[in-house]
Amino acid sequence: METVAEKDRSGRDRIFSESTKLFAAYGYEGVSTRQIAAETGLSVSTVHHHAGSKRGLYLRIIENLYEKEEELVETILDAIDDEVIKDRERFLKVLDQLLERLLEFAQENPERQRLYVMRWLAPPDELRDREADLTLRLYHRLAAILTRGQQFGMIRGDLNLGYFIRSFDWLIFSYFVSGAFNWQQLRADPLCSENLEEFKQYLFDYVRQMLDL
Amino acid sequence: METVAEKDRSGRDRIFSESTKLFAAYGYEGVSTRQIAAETGLSVSTVHHHAGSKRGLYLRIIENLYEKEEELVETILDAIDDEVIKDRERFLKVLDQLLERLLEFAQENPERQRLYVMRWLAPPDELRDREADLTLRLYHRLAAILTRGQQFGMIRGDLNLGYFIRSFDWLIFSYFVSGAFNWQQLRADPLCSENLEEFKQYLFDYVRQMLDL
Repeated sequence: METVAEKDRSGRDRIFSESTKLFAAYGYEGVSTRQIAAETGLSVSTVHHHAGSKRGLYLRIIENLYEKEEELVETILDAIDDEVIKDRERFLKVLDQLLERLLEFAQENPERQRLYVMRWLAPPDELRDREADLTLRLYHRLAAILTRGQQFGMIRGDLNLGYFIRSFDWLIFSYFVSGAFNWQQLRADPLCSENLEEFKQYLFDYVRQMLDL
Repeated sequence: METVAEKDRSGRDRIFSESTKLFAAYGYEGVSTRQIAAETGLSVSTVHHHAGSKRGLYLRIIENLYEKEEELVETILDAIDDEVIKDRERFLKVLDQLLERLLEFAQENPERQRLYVMRWLAPPDELRDREADLTLRLYHRLAAILTRGQQFGMIRGDLNLGYFIRSFDWLIFSYFVSGAFNWQQLRADPLCSENLEEFKQYLFDYVRQMLDL
């Protein structure tokens, strides 16, 4: 038999995973606590007990995604010191690893891209500042590394680092939400491994050409 | 007094512009003929008389946008012959002009970007094939020019032309829908002229670096 603590945890997990799917399908505004309760088979008050407000629940979902993403790239980012940046081969290798991890993360969390693109379309609201903080936290870490690369003359000094990093995200979100590029039908399956491989090669190319590394 | 023909035209125009705004705000699935009637102050049957089905109306809106876009770039595209492609300075100049026109078009039709990004999120439906045809028509014209550039050795032979062109659109759509990049607040006003200028410079840079021209 489940203990109370186990029951609580499994309830929270169920609320978490079901509401992620609902938010990804209908957007933050399009989902009510009532719907989350219906999908998880719990009462509205149990949902409130476990998850708090809808806003709090949504923020925990995206905070969890950002944390998972940062954890995943942490060991790579920590290993990029000045010695690595000054060595073209090693620098390119860690950047490729980083790209590969970020792409894997996107692939394993396809709801994430839908969630965020839906938020692009939402009018300014109470969630926006927190979302910006979370995104900019990783951007600042990446920018610090690339700035160092510019200081050592490894990366083009006139590259706009902000748009370089932001565009990288834009390309990944667009790929997963609008589909892989295809000359016949335009939108092919983004999760098919052949398509993913071709897109990954384009991202590698984007990084090399834009950095001129 | 308006003649019957004038009344018909102004009714059609009103339906067209109001439904464009509605589709951009709520998506194709989220708008009904009833709402379009309410917004334009016409009856549902008058809307049907002027605009036909919701599907037909939506397709005419996007066909109109594609036609306007193609018309706008036609004179530039027509002027790009082999002599231009072989001359680095001239080739770059027309590509910059083209980019500037496409960006102006996006700027003047901000609903377009919202319309399309909403469609990215929509499940596959009866509109998808026609949208793909319209998009690919312009992509094929651009690819023909870039392929010629590769044949003459002006553009890197290993550039993936499909993703290069598609990414260009992805960047523009993302910019207008998710906002200009900003290190403090992430999402700044995409229509502010200073922000637009910075983004345009990044697109110029993207074209130069990726083509290696």
